[in-house]
Amino acid sequence: MFLSFEGIDGSGKSTQARLLADSLRESGQEVVLTREPGGSPGAEEIRRLVLEGDPDRWSAETEILLFTAARRDHMERLILPALAEGKVVICDRFADSTRMYQGLSRGDLRALVDTLHDLMIGREPDLTVLIDMDPDTGLARAIGRGGAEARFEEFGPDLQRRMRDGFLALAQDNAARFRVIDGNRPVDTVASDVRATVDSALR
Amino acid sequence: MFLSFEGIDGSGKSTQARLLADSLRESGQEVVLTREPGGSPGAEEIRRLVLEGDPDRWSAETEILLFTAARRDHMERLILPALAEGKVVICDRFADSTRMYQGLSRGDLRALVDTLHDLMIGREPDLTVLIDMDPDTGLARAIGRGGAEARFEEFGPDLQRRMRDGFLALAQDNAARFRVIDGNRPVDTVASDVRATVDSALR
Repeated sequence: MFLSFEGIDGSGKSTQARLLADSLRESGQEVVLTREPGGSPGAEEIRRLVLEGDPDRWSAETEILLFTAARRDHMERLILPALAEGKVVICDRFADSTRMYQGLSRGDLRALVDTLHDLMIGREPDLTVLIDMDPDTGLARAIGRGGAEARFEEFGPDLQRRMRDGFLALAQDNAARFRVIDGNRPVDTVASDVRATVDSALR
Repeated sequence: MFLSFEGIDGSGKSTQARLLADSLRESGQEVVLTREPGGSPGAEEIRRLVLEGDPDRWSAETEILLFTAARRDHMERLILPALAEGKVVICDRFADSTRMYQGLSRGDLRALVDTLHDLMIGREPDLTVLIDMDPDTGLARAIGRGGAEARFEEFGPDLQRRMRDGFLALAQDNAARFRVIDGNRPVDTVASDVRATVDSALR
């Protein structure tokens, strides 16, 4: 079972990914909790190339290639071997984040992201949990802790809103794979809801 | 005018690229001499990721993505702007080296290299000078100075021969773009031949 968590910055998806991992482990499952960009030693090096330095240092197209390279490494070295051993893999952000942040923040490059994904990755998560969050609340949280997405030049209320709308549209277009969870509630309530959703999908 | 130099390791192509740049500058041309992998600040960082460390750290597919990302950056930031200003760009290695070293050393991935090239780069040099060299002579030279290709696990006489044959086949399949120059001669003789070939192509 390959699960991804998606959502805007400050949506609480990393916390929810960790809580789900803990909860599944308590139920006796072997769980690999990982994240993107990064997740394998090589992909973490590419992550540093992309997330550090001047936000303008790479064009959107080069950035998409670098994210795809990182994802390919992550798949080969960590995700596919873990799935082959029967483990549950939980990934904090996956290709849908590239579809949004690289594919929809500087012009519309979603078709390019999809073409490269089909060519080099060729697999989607079995289930994607979208933690939906009010954009302004998420922004306030993200600013509070200095999230990775804060490097985007366009970072701010407008980007948050566009990303939220984009994620919801993506969930609608891929309804079989996505589950949308309302993240505007106490963390334990959200976590119970996530666990119930995953259990129901696992059955 | 966009020129690339190609050839096996130790073929003398870097020397010839430099001598051609000097010679064209003496004739009053504005020349940008660059190299791959690398050539722009971002691409040089990707170069370090690819060429340093364990030769097995990346799969061939991930390496092709990283080289394509580096090339995209190099094209956007250096090559295309220089061409737009009317300069001659001379590049020591370009996509044909990826077709050979990443496309033909670990299985046959040339179709993947070509697909990514068409998608993300979309341009070939106007003229590619292939410096043809006896594989064993080239190997001895490359070992003497520790070339970048020495990191390939398969580095040795067999890889040199396969790469030489591959380059010659590529030149034959792309005869309009390639000129093959015999590099097994004194450096000045080769340089005169290169200059005459380029002058004739420029006319």
